[in-house]
Parts: sequence; C-alpha cells; structure tokens
Amino acid sequence: MMKLKATSVAVALVVAGSAWAAVAVRDEPIKPIEPAKVENAAKVELGKKLWFEPRLSMSGIISCNTCHNLSMGGTDNLKTSIGHGWKAGPVNSPTVYNSSLAIAQFWDGRAADLKEQAGGPIQAGVEMNMPHTLAVGILQSIPGYVEEFESVYGKNKIDIDMITDSIAEFEKTLVTPDSRFDKWLRGDDKALSEKELAGYTLFKESGCVACHNGPAAGGTSFQRMGVVEPYKSSSPAEGRSAVTGADADRFNFKVPTLRNVALTYPYFHDGEAATLEQAVDTMGRLQLGRTYSKDEIGQIVAFLKTLTGELPQIAMPVLPPSSNATPRPDPFK
Amino acid sequence: MMKLKATSVAVALVVAGSAWAAVAVRDEPIKPIEPAKVENAAKVELGKKLWFEPRLSMSGIISCNTCHNLSMGGTDNLKTSIGHGWKAGPVNSPTVYNSSLAIAQFWDGRAADLKEQAGGPIQAGVEMNMPHTLAVGILQSIPGYVEEFESVYGKNKIDIDMITDSIAEFEKTLVTPDSRFDKWLRGDDKALSEKELAGYTLFKESGCVACHNGPAAGGTSFQRMGVVEPYKSSSPAEGRSAVTGADADRFNFKVPTLRNVALTYPYFHDGEAATLEQAVDTMGRLQLGRTYSKDEIGQIVAFLKTLTGELPQIAMPVLPPSSNATPRPDPFK
Repeated sequence: MMKLKATSVAVALVVAGSAWAAVAVRDEPIKPIEPAKVENAAKVELGKKLWFEPRLSMSGIISCNTCHNLSMGGTDNLKTSIGHGWKAGPVNSPTVYNSSLAIAQFWDGRAADLKEQAGGPIQAGVEMNMPHTLAVGILQSIPGYVEEFESVYGKNKIDIDMITDSIAEFEKTLVTPDSRFDKWLRGDDKALSEKELAGYTLFKESGCVACHNGPAAGGTSFQRMGVVEPYKSSSPAEGRSAVTGADADRFNFKVPTLRNVALTYPYFHDGEAATLEQAVDTMGRLQLGRTYSKDEIGQIVAFLKTLTGELPQIAMPVLPPSSNATPRPDPFK
Repeated sequence: MMKLKATSVAVALVVAGSAWAAVAVRDEPIKPIEPAKVENAAKVELGKKLWFEPRLSMSGIISCNTCHNLSMGGTDNLKTSIGHGWKAGPVNSPTVYNSSLAIAQFWDGRAADLKEQAGGPIQAGVEMNMPHTLAVGILQSIPGYVEEFESVYGKNKIDIDMITDSIAEFEKTLVTPDSRFDKWLRGDDKALSEKELAGYTLFKESGCVACHNGPAAGGTSFQRMGVVEPYKSSSPAEGRSAVTGADADRFNFKVPTLRNVALTYPYFHDGEAATLEQAVDTMGRLQLGRTYSKDEIGQIVAFLKTLTGELPQIAMPVLPPSSNATPRPDPFK
C-alpha cells in the first residue's frame, strides 16, 4: 500500500485487484488499522515457532498461544487464565492482536514493549514457570533451532533476547485491518448500518472516545477504573501503582483496545463483565456517570461489533524435534 | 494421482509438475503413504475448527490439539498427557498423524474407528471433562457453528454424532506422505544413505516388520508387550484385555505406527522410553530376544528417521465467538 499525505486528511491509495481507488480517511478519533509491514520474514517465522512452542514452559504444554489463542481473538476467553499446575492467573489475558499499537504492555504497563513483555509469562510461576536459563538451554539443545537462530541472528549461541525479540517480531504482524468500521472510515458509507452508526455517534458524543481512540480504539493511556463511582472487584490487581509506586496511580489500568472486542470476552482486567452489554453499562455508569438505556446499549454494542477486523491467516508451524540431550518437560515441578 | 494394478507390483503414475514418470513401488512389507483424498471439504473444515476448539472442554483451554499437537508430530511429547485439573492421563498420547490407517483406535483398540474415538477424550474426566450433552449445548448456542453444521449436515440441530463425524473427517486428512523412505519405496535409490538402508535391512531381517508393516509401519495388529521377556512398568494399563475380558489379551497393545517416529517421543504405551535408541534396544530384547549392538541400534535409528513424512500445512481456524447464551467454561469444576 502507498500512502500520500494531503493537507487535512490522509489520502490512501488502495490496490484492489487491478483497480485503483483514491479514498479519503474520515477525520475521526478512531483511525484505521494499517496492514503489517514484514521487514524480516525469517525472524517472523522463527517468532511464530516460539509463539506456539510449549517447550518454553516447564510442563511442556503451555505456549503463548494457550492464553492468547489466535483462533479466539488472541485471548483464552476465560476470566483469568489457567497456568502451570492449573493455577489461576491474577488478571484477564489481553488480546495479542494489535498489541503492537499500545503505549506499553500488560494491564499495568510494566513492560515498555512487546519484546520486554514476552519474557514475563515464560518465567512467571502461575504461567509457564520456566526459568529463562532453562528455556535457552532447551532451545540450544535442539539442532533445528540452533540452525534457525543462527540464520536469523548470525550467532550459534541462543540467548533470551533473541527469543523475546523474535516473538515480538511475530506479534507485530498480528494486526487486524479491514473491519467494517475501517471500511466506513475509508469512505464506504454502506459499511455500517444506521443502528451501528447511531451507536458510534453515541459512543463518541458521550465521551468513550476520550480513552478509546487511535487505531486500536484504546491502548493509548492509563485510566482509573472507576472515575465517577468506585469499581468493586475481588481482584488483587492494583494497576499502574504497582509500577510507579504512586498512590495516585492505584486502580489505573491501560485502556484496553476495542478492536475485535466481540471476540475478546469476558471484559475488564478481572474478566468480571461476561458480555458486551454488561461492559458498556458498567463503563457508562462508572466512567461517565451515565446510565445508558437498553436501546442505547444495543446501539453501542452494534457499533463495537463492527470493530472485528480480518485476522491474519496463520499456518501452524512444524516445530523442530528435541534431541536426546534436550531437557524433558516436568509438569509436576 | 492415478493408480494402475499390474500383476506383481503396483504401478503408480505420479504427476510432478508437468512431467509424468512411471514408478514401480518396491515389494516391501512397509508400503508408501498415499495422499489424503478430501471428499467433503466443508466437513473437513468444520472438523478442523472442532479439533482446535477448547470450548469442547470444561475448562475452556483443552482441545484435541493440546495432546495431539499438529506442530509436534501429532503428540504432546509427554510420557502421559496432562488433562483437566492438571491430572496425568494413564497412557502416552499416540500421534493423530496417519491414525486413519490403524485397525482400531486407542492403545487397547476399544474404539473401532476415528469417529468412535473422538467422543472419548471430550468426556473423560482426566482429559477434557465435558459431558457430551453440554458440548452439544455449547456449540448449539454459537450462531457461527449452527450455520456451519447446517450447511454440512442439512440440519439446524447439532448432535454429538455430527461433532465426532466431522472431527474424524478432518483427522483422515492428517496423513504424511513423501518421507525419504517412501521416495526410496517408489524407486529413488538415492533417497536413503547406506547406513539407513543397512538399518532397514536389519529391521526387516531381524523381524521388526512382523508387527511394523503396512503403510503406517504399524497399527495393523495387537501384540503382547514383552514376548520374550516381561515388560516391567508402573503403568496400570492392561491393554487389550480391558476390551475383550480375555486373560490371554493382557498387556496386548495396538502396535504403534512408526511413521514420524522421530517426532513422537517418548515411546511405548507408558512413555517410558525417552529416546529412539532406548526404544529399539528394549524392543529387540523383549520382543525378539535379540541384543542389538550400539552400531546396529544406530543403523535402525537412522532408518527410523527416514519415516518422517511431509506434514500437511494447517491454517489455524478462526473460531466463531460465543453468544451471550453460551455456557461459560469452568476450569475448577
């Protein structure tokens, strides 16, 4: 895709078959998702293998894809995830799709970027429970990986930085352009129904876009959960204050993306909102001091469902087999 | 592919690009794997979705692919699998690849075919722990599935037979033709090294082919584990006698396929052989009364590694989202 900047609106030239069409992007607080640009296909392919690699977990059965299932909107659709030893995690697993567009990673933003994030769940006791040194040792014992890391990084010694770097590179390809809302943003008036458009207007005019803006319709700021009314939760998660130490940051969480939100139920950092209707109702009351009517909630939900984009086609990788020297998984450790 | 029968050998006409080559298949106890014939692509596609569908488990995180991982030779590479509640299963998960070629399913053959097999792990308490009625109810509450089952089966009411039938139809596509051994079988003398060929000769002449024969190099009979010497195991699995009730069938197990055996470690019904070398040594002593030398084991292992075929390219399915009416997973039930 080529992109030209005009004075007031971005003008995109989109190739569709052999026909060219000039499309003005509407000036809205939510912007279209751009397709992924793959700069290093070999690194992405390696990262994809590691994304699906259960040998990065102590048990040998948990991979990144277990909790961020690419077949299910990049989530596990559980309130909180199940990890090593069947332990429940403390917060809801956010979607990996479009996560590259966020200002920081994790609900509390404790990782600056995807690369920094990727190392966390590997070693977390309630997730994959795998020390980084052992993860490296395992991959280093697998001839297929040694060869592939060498071809990508030019070294025959694998390190944890290469592992997280290639996983992040794969994750950057997990964007979901071409939702119906994006088609509308690019000028297709018929892409949204009247109800959906009414829902978007209400979403915008009642203030949701103050936080849910940008290409990901979220992910651009940290905000307090419970602005007008406090949010009641049994979750121990304190949010941003766990990172900054500042009391003012208590219960501040990264605003989640609304992209593919119809696929990423249940909602909120504690997964306590089972449906979109519940989530919209709670957000209206707690964040905006507004009680939406049933019809209004229906309109906003109809709009939210137009944010489901085209999920990338992912071919399952064939993982290189362990060697006799590879440390075996230990589910009960 | 077209196939003509001649008097003594099967003659296959293989299309390679635009060139045709007549290839005589060598008359060996192991036969080439034929590519899958897809008769109903829509049913296969539905079955693929169900294969990757964690909502068929009570926890919402275990799918067929958890224990028969298509990225890992169709197994989980664990001694015995981890199921619902982190419980360990009683036997090693066999590979799903080429399982359509077996005389029966499960180690003890208690399911006649893939369709009958598919219902077992869904409801087994140590596997997916999901009553069939609830599995049906969940799929029936998901509009995307209702539509897809209707288009495949012509009914808008889903039943467990349709679920297992479509999973079986997908599994039938999971064959792995074109291993180096198959190329040799089809006449390519250079497909095997001298060592590999010596290994095959030894494998054949010392009697392994009595059980490991046919296209899957196994799966054609039930045999006693421990013919010459008893097999010592802490596994409670009794084998075929659990199905027939006959004492003579105790410790008789279905002979596993050796196709892709380099990928399907660890070995035996209890997963106690960690490496191919161990497995070959044990089989020689216990089944044939023969102690192979280190060199002989190396030759046989080299041959076994030539049985790794082309794994089919599987595109991850996009699973239809739950509706508000869909019963939610309950990992701790």
